[in-house]
Amino acid sequence: MAEALRFHFDFSSPYGYLMSEKIDELAARHGRKVQWRPILLGVIFQTTGSAPLTLQAPPKAAYYRGDFARSARFLGLPYRMPSKFPLPTQQAARAYYWLHDRDCALARDFAHAAYRALFLDDRDISAPETVLDLAAGLGVDRAVLAAALAGPELKERLKSEVEAALAAGVFGSPTVIVDGEVFFGVDRLPQIERWLTAPF
Amino acid sequence: MAEALRFHFDFSSPYGYLMSEKIDELAARHGRKVQWRPILLGVIFQTTGSAPLTLQAPPKAAYYRGDFARSARFLGLPYRMPSKFPLPTQQAARAYYWLHDRDCALARDFAHAAYRALFLDDRDISAPETVLDLAAGLGVDRAVLAAALAGPELKERLKSEVEAALAAGVFGSPTVIVDGEVFFGVDRLPQIERWLTAPF
Repeated sequence: MAEALRFHFDFSSPYGYLMSEKIDELAARHGRKVQWRPILLGVIFQTTGSAPLTLQAPPKAAYYRGDFARSARFLGLPYRMPSKFPLPTQQAARAYYWLHDRDCALARDFAHAAYRALFLDDRDISAPETVLDLAAGLGVDRAVLAAALAGPELKERLKSEVEAALAAGVFGSPTVIVDGEVFFGVDRLPQIERWLTAPF
Repeated sequence: MAEALRFHFDFSSPYGYLMSEKIDELAARHGRKVQWRPILLGVIFQTTGSAPLTLQAPPKAAYYRGDFARSARFLGLPYRMPSKFPLPTQQAARAYYWLHDRDCALARDFAHAAYRALFLDDRDISAPETVLDLAAGLGVDRAVLAAALAGPELKERLKSEVEAALAAGVFGSPTVIVDGEVFFGVDRLPQIERWLTAPF
């Protein structure tokens, strides 16, 4: 059985959202599964000395705001620039891992719901209430998840996931790793597709 | 007659080299010409607070070194990482504009020769002697070009070209502008192709 792809993303990453709508289908066409692994770009950027694209110098920031939307249209995906951006995503990422340890299909549904809440419906997914609402909408017990999010275990879990991603060479979102080969950016979709057919 | 595309590039940019081998053919398929406009990333990075990819944090720098070569293979182009990198490209860019004002087809040939000298043959194109050798190989009078490169006019010309590029929103290499729409990166080739078919 072929190894699963690893998809590292931050819930506030526009290109990560675009990748999230494409990667499972692409992998499935090549008989592959995908492991989704949310990370925290804030932590990773501290290590690499980077900053969010929209906080770069004005011409670069303006370009990327336009490119988020244009790349969405290019990929045939709906997209709306969130009014609060960038924003912290610890709560969403911790909720993801809590769900993943219980029901990985449910965790995937939650990840889609969180990304779409931010990039389609302009909801503030940095708020714990929004994260709980999204999970509750998928049938999750709100009080149980709220208690888990308040505890130290999920903090540690997310921290170790971010450290593992850094160790694997991840420096941005989205990053897809195929059999050890690292691809950064949704614009690497065509390269990923060819690599799945035959490494080049 | 449709407007020409504008292709801004630094002679030391690996992705610029890859774009240089693709953009004319792509444009021609859509009945378009391309204006080539070398720039100096060093000047642009001072304005935007950026730095060359290979001088970024180790995981990012390592990724891009690998991605230069992988993207070349993906596009079916030969490529070799230069031993001296990054390197200054004022001499090559000034020679380009001098040639362009005399024979734009010859300037295009020179640009290809300079890019291939750096990224195929590992020649140091920052050296004035190399630039003169490359031009002489295309039939240019070496002494006349050497005198022009030593004068103030070409310095001013290049400076104003870089300022014009900055004013047009250019912050990296390669940048292709199609009817006012800015595309950054060789990975935007598929978007450029679709835009030339029908803006989206």
